[in-house]
Amino acid sequence: MTSPVRVGVIGAGRIGQVHAEHLSYRIPEAEVLAVADVNKAAAVACAERLGIATASDDPRDIMGNPAIEAVIICSSTDTHARFVEEAAAAGKHIFCEKPIDHDLAKIDRALAAVERAGVKLQVGFNRRFDPNFAQVQQMVAGGQIGVPHLLRITSRDPEPPPAEYVKVSGGMFLDMTIHDFDMARYLMGSEVVEIFAAGAVLVDPAIGEAGDIDTAVVTLRFANGAIGTIDNSRKAVYGYDQRVEVFGSGGGIVVGNNAPHTAVYSNSDGVHAAKPLYFFMQRYTDSFINEMKQFIEAVQQDTPTPVTGIDGRIPVVMGMAAWKSYKENRPVKLSEIG
Amino acid sequence: MTSPVRVGVIGAGRIGQVHAEHLSYRIPEAEVLAVADVNKAAAVACAERLGIATASDDPRDIMGNPAIEAVIICSSTDTHARFVEEAAAAGKHIFCEKPIDHDLAKIDRALAAVERAGVKLQVGFNRRFDPNFAQVQQMVAGGQIGVPHLLRITSRDPEPPPAEYVKVSGGMFLDMTIHDFDMARYLMGSEVVEIFAAGAVLVDPAIGEAGDIDTAVVTLRFANGAIGTIDNSRKAVYGYDQRVEVFGSGGGIVVGNNAPHTAVYSNSDGVHAAKPLYFFMQRYTDSFINEMKQFIEAVQQDTPTPVTGIDGRIPVVMGMAAWKSYKENRPVKLSEIG
Amino acid sequence: MTSPVRVGVIGAGRIGQVHAEHLSYRIPEAEVLAVADVNKAAAVACAERLGIATASDDPRDIMGNPAIEAVIICSSTDTHARFVEEAAAAGKHIFCEKPIDHDLAKIDRALAAVERAGVKLQVGFNRRFDPNFAQVQQMVAGGQIGVPHLLRITSRDPEPPPAEYVKVSGGMFLDMTIHDFDMARYLMGSEVVEIFAAGAVLVDPAIGEAGDIDTAVVTLRFANGAIGTIDNSRKAVYGYDQRVEVFGSGGGIVVGNNAPHTAVYSNSDGVHAAKPLYFFMQRYTDSFINEMKQFIEAVQQDTPTPVTGIDGRIPVVMGMAAWKSYKENRPVKLSEIG
Amino acid sequence: MTSPVRVGVIGAGRIGQVHAEHLSYRIPEAEVLAVADVNKAAAVACAERLGIATASDDPRDIMGNPAIEAVIICSSTDTHARFVEEAAAAGKHIFCEKPIDHDLAKIDRALAAVERAGVKLQVGFNRRFDPNFAQVQQMVAGGQIGVPHLLRITSRDPEPPPAEYVKVSGGMFLDMTIHDFDMARYLMGSEVVEIFAAGAVLVDPAIGEAGDIDTAVVTLRFANGAIGTIDNSRKAVYGYDQRVEVFGSGGGIVVGNNAPHTAVYSNSDGVHAAKPLYFFMQRYTDSFINEMKQFIEAVQQDTPTPVTGIDGRIPVVMGMAAWKSYKENRPVKLSEIG
Repeated sequence: MTSPVRVGVIGAGRIGQVHAEHLSYRIPEAEVLAVADVNKAAAVACAERLGIATASDDPRDIMGNPAIEAVIICSSTDTHARFVEEAAAAGKHIFCEKPIDHDLAKIDRALAAVERAGVKLQVGFNRRFDPNFAQVQQMVAGGQIGVPHLLRITSRDPEPPPAEYVKVSGGMFLDMTIHDFDMARYLMGSEVVEIFAAGAVLVDPAIGEAGDIDTAVVTLRFANGAIGTIDNSRKAVYGYDQRVEVFGSGGGIVVGNNAPHTAVYSNSDGVHAAKPLYFFMQRYTDSFINEMKQFIEAVQQDTPTPVTGIDGRIPVVMGMAAWKSYKENRPVKLSEIG
Repeated sequence: MTSPVRVGVIGAGRIGQVHAEHLSYRIPEAEVLAVADVNKAAAVACAERLGIATASDDPRDIMGNPAIEAVIICSSTDTHARFVEEAAAAGKHIFCEKPIDHDLAKIDRALAAVERAGVKLQVGFNRRFDPNFAQVQQMVAGGQIGVPHLLRITSRDPEPPPAEYVKVSGGMFLDMTIHDFDMARYLMGSEVVEIFAAGAVLVDPAIGEAGDIDTAVVTLRFANGAIGTIDNSRKAVYGYDQRVEVFGSGGGIVVGNNAPHTAVYSNSDGVHAAKPLYFFMQRYTDSFINEMKQFIEAVQQDTPTPVTGIDGRIPVVMGMAAWKSYKENRPVKLSEIG
Repeated sequence: MTSPVRVGVIGAGRIGQVHAEHLSYRIPEAEVLAVADVNKAAAVACAERLGIATASDDPRDIMGNPAIEAVIICSSTDTHARFVEEAAAAGKHIFCEKPIDHDLAKIDRALAAVERAGVKLQVGFNRRFDPNFAQVQQMVAGGQIGVPHLLRITSRDPEPPPAEYVKVSGGMFLDMTIHDFDMARYLMGSEVVEIFAAGAVLVDPAIGEAGDIDTAVVTLRFANGAIGTIDNSRKAVYGYDQRVEVFGSGGGIVVGNNAPHTAVYSNSDGVHAAKPLYFFMQRYTDSFINEMKQFIEAVQQDTPTPVTGIDGRIPVVMGMAAWKSYKENRPVKLSEIG
Repeated sequence: MTSPVRVGVIGAGRIGQVHAEHLSYRIPEAEVLAVADVNKAAAVACAERLGIATASDDPRDIMGNPAIEAVIICSSTDTHARFVEEAAAAGKHIFCEKPIDHDLAKIDRALAAVERAGVKLQVGFNRRFDPNFAQVQQMVAGGQIGVPHLLRITSRDPEPPPAEYVKVSGGMFLDMTIHDFDMARYLMGSEVVEIFAAGAVLVDPAIGEAGDIDTAVVTLRFANGAIGTIDNSRKAVYGYDQRVEVFGSGGGIVVGNNAPHTAVYSNSDGVHAAKPLYFFMQRYTDSFINEMKQFIEAVQQDTPTPVTGIDGRIPVVMGMAAWKSYKENRPVKLSEIG
């Protein structure tokens, strides 16, 4: 039996805690040695709750710990690229939450550092590990729909993020749609070459005042000739709406939402079922566990990670193309971005 | 009890026969006095089958028959506008299959003739009368989803039309998507102001050689700020795929396909259900009956028809805008078309 | 082309009018020459509405009309057996609403008369002609579930009949469950040999005071060893609940209810769909048309009817066995009844 | 923060390992100090895998360990009652897998021992903790269907147990249907007073030769007048079929199966979805965790357990009544059993 992969977690916010808990309790092949957060109290609380030996307010305590083989970067987005570089320099394998950065130059420098160091990098596009979407990907890749012609993604949040978050988020295309951009590449097995984005502020004027949009329909042109469309809203009152559909020469596959239970209630008003699971923490629990399992497995067995650095870079390019398209009201080729 | 509305049917092809049968057997408030077709044998066969008194190869036999109050124009598209004008001149109410024409000047001349004559005109956008779509429209209009933000239409045929038809059809946007354009206006209760159309030839190269496309994703900008998307394919191997979804500030409504039965079969391979009804003749039977009922009712009770001349004109403008957008690869405002 | 089958309709109540309308407008192979009802006004109104030549208050006007080849018996249950005998004596083919009678001796005399006269008899178990149930039957008969092991029928009315009807109805097992008894035989392709019926008065005490029950669970033992269960209620507040399930060595088939539309509405309260179609007149429209079509076809082509006299007799025996079982609280063999 | 509840697990077979793992990794409020199994290798393997300090082949090592507050009894059924008595004598709280025993006298002696010792006992009817069934129970108890009239349980295994297991299992009613008996009481909130069981050997003659049945339909009479029906099969080729339906004066609730994903695949053959989760280990994962959480919580907070000793006893009585009913082919009152 191989010994567990020893990891350090940087960032003890919501997603950092989720990963730390999964690594501690759900993945026997991993062991969390340390957690660091600029807010030391958060690090300490997380460490206590999960029985992690070391809590710190300095990520260097993790970078410099020779016992730690891999780091899980869950700090604020503006620190991702720097920590990737530092971890690579320290010879540690890296799991980095999405996005690596909103600046392509910084991303490229980080990816180069990873390349040079010969460490592994996995980017946190967790939805690939969701049983629904993974099933669709397998069926498409397995030829069950023949040649893919059309892709439809519906991705709507139950409520918009706070205004202060909107300002630093990179805007909807880089914060929210970025997951759908990754999903599009993942499901279709083909790269997007051109994007047309129609956006609007329909949910909350404050989002518009912050320079962002809250509603969008994005058209994707794939290298293989297929066409895709994504629709986004920051507010679906019925909960988190996460559906996907791929259509091709041999058939189609549709995935619907997941609900907390299957009870269907009929009364004199109609037939009623449960709303979808509320938001990503409930909806993507399994995918968060699975992505971490596969990262640990890639480290332990020295195999490629399932979401690479370039998989982390391309959706950022797509987000930039979407913004450019929205602002200039014209289709934008990804080759215009870089 | 009012006496039945006496009608003449021009065109005894597939759709002409459908309307003639419904008027004869399903709508007691109507009586078909005559049927005309350039192919006299077709007119005679139709008349015999349905017990219609007069069959002719000359539409003037209908236009000139003073007992006939209303004409049902089901002849080839290139004759629609002319017959509308002639029927108007003869003082007859008119049901005209879609489209009135592919030439806006001809449409406008026909609509002016109708206006001058003070007769009623209903254009054959039958899907408005489908129970599924009518239900969505009523719920949206009734405010059940609050302010509409997003529209999604999936409209895929089970198989492409014959190549010779493609050539005279006006192309996919004017032949097939035109129904979805009408549906978009109908469901959202707002006009489309701008269209971006991405198209491709993925089903059959012969369609491309005929100058047409067979796959498309169309983005619609509505006057009220909402955004819509339509996806089309000329060939869904599982049958006629006709779904619609409207999403707004207060919720969303989705309609699925209709199937011939509800049997769900589970075996060691999985869980299996019936394919959707094969094509429009099966899928839209009720809507064909309902549209004709409402036309007869509008004539009998002297009320406005539910699909007016302008409702017939606008989707043609939308189809033209879609073609222009596709060819120039840019969003096109409807105001650019006329 | 063969000439249409000329029929007379006896009984112009609700179901009589439905059959007369279908024969007049939906089945070109039939022609209704006359309608008779003890309430002459009802016969006249029906004849006028549907363009039937003759209306009468005397069934002998139909029995004695040599132009009439077939009679449709839709009068009150207590007259069915007598009219079957008279029609047989007059050499006419017979469609008789269910049940033929509640008295086995009368049924047997009627069936003997039919036999002697060599005319055709079809009994009105319309549900066999419903697309859902017909699909299940075909799949079971085709071996898709292997050897049938279990049958489940859910059959619930939206509201109980009037108290005065209850008294003459034969009680729930002979009035309502009788359809499910027929369905059980039809779907399983095997005869029932023993019945255990548990009943209760839970909906309305007045039904109990009238000597009837309003809620039941019936267990069926089939000759082939399979077991079935039927559950009935006289009042489902959400509408007419008509589901069926067959399970066997190779799989299972379930059919759900039919609804007026497929719209699914999601809001902050949940996900909502339409109730089932309200009652049998809405739910079984197609099956009423289909059963009549097949009767006319059997007459025209001189083939056996799809629901024979013995098919009309056996469910009555099953209803009697159910009553006996309920009253004696023990399983009752059909052979105990006769 | 309260200290975790220290437990010992008796029996390291399949279900013992499941509970030990959940207690170790999924329930922070519990700590497993020891595991015992007559097969020492099994105990050791389990302890090593889960990091449990002590492994033993003697349950007395657990009963005699003063640090252990609660025991989880997962040994073979014939040892349950004895271990309950010993654990009670040792003053330990008890979670005991179902059934306590197949002998009512032994059950009663065990329950008396628990009563005397003043310890808590929870019996392993895990399905009560399934999100689907718990939702139904809450809705019924909350009055959403008004007064309950009918209950339907469909419970079918994907494949029969091995012949040797059948012989010691107590037979289908005490091994498999017992879960449905518990579910019936739980959902309806009323006791069953009479049972009629129809059974058959349709899946495998070897089961019949072992004195058991493999197919059954059971009718339940509740004290409140409602009627229920359970159908069982030992072999559903499409997987584990676990559905429930409650119907009442105000509406109905139906729960369907859970599947591994929501992908729906349409091709030229039809529309296809995933089979249900294969068997109880996949289907009831959450309910196994939830039942153990609630046991630990009851111990920690000194509240009643959610499934008591009497809840463990009654379904055994129901199983006995079902066997008696099946053998004598008559309804049997629970009061006949004891």
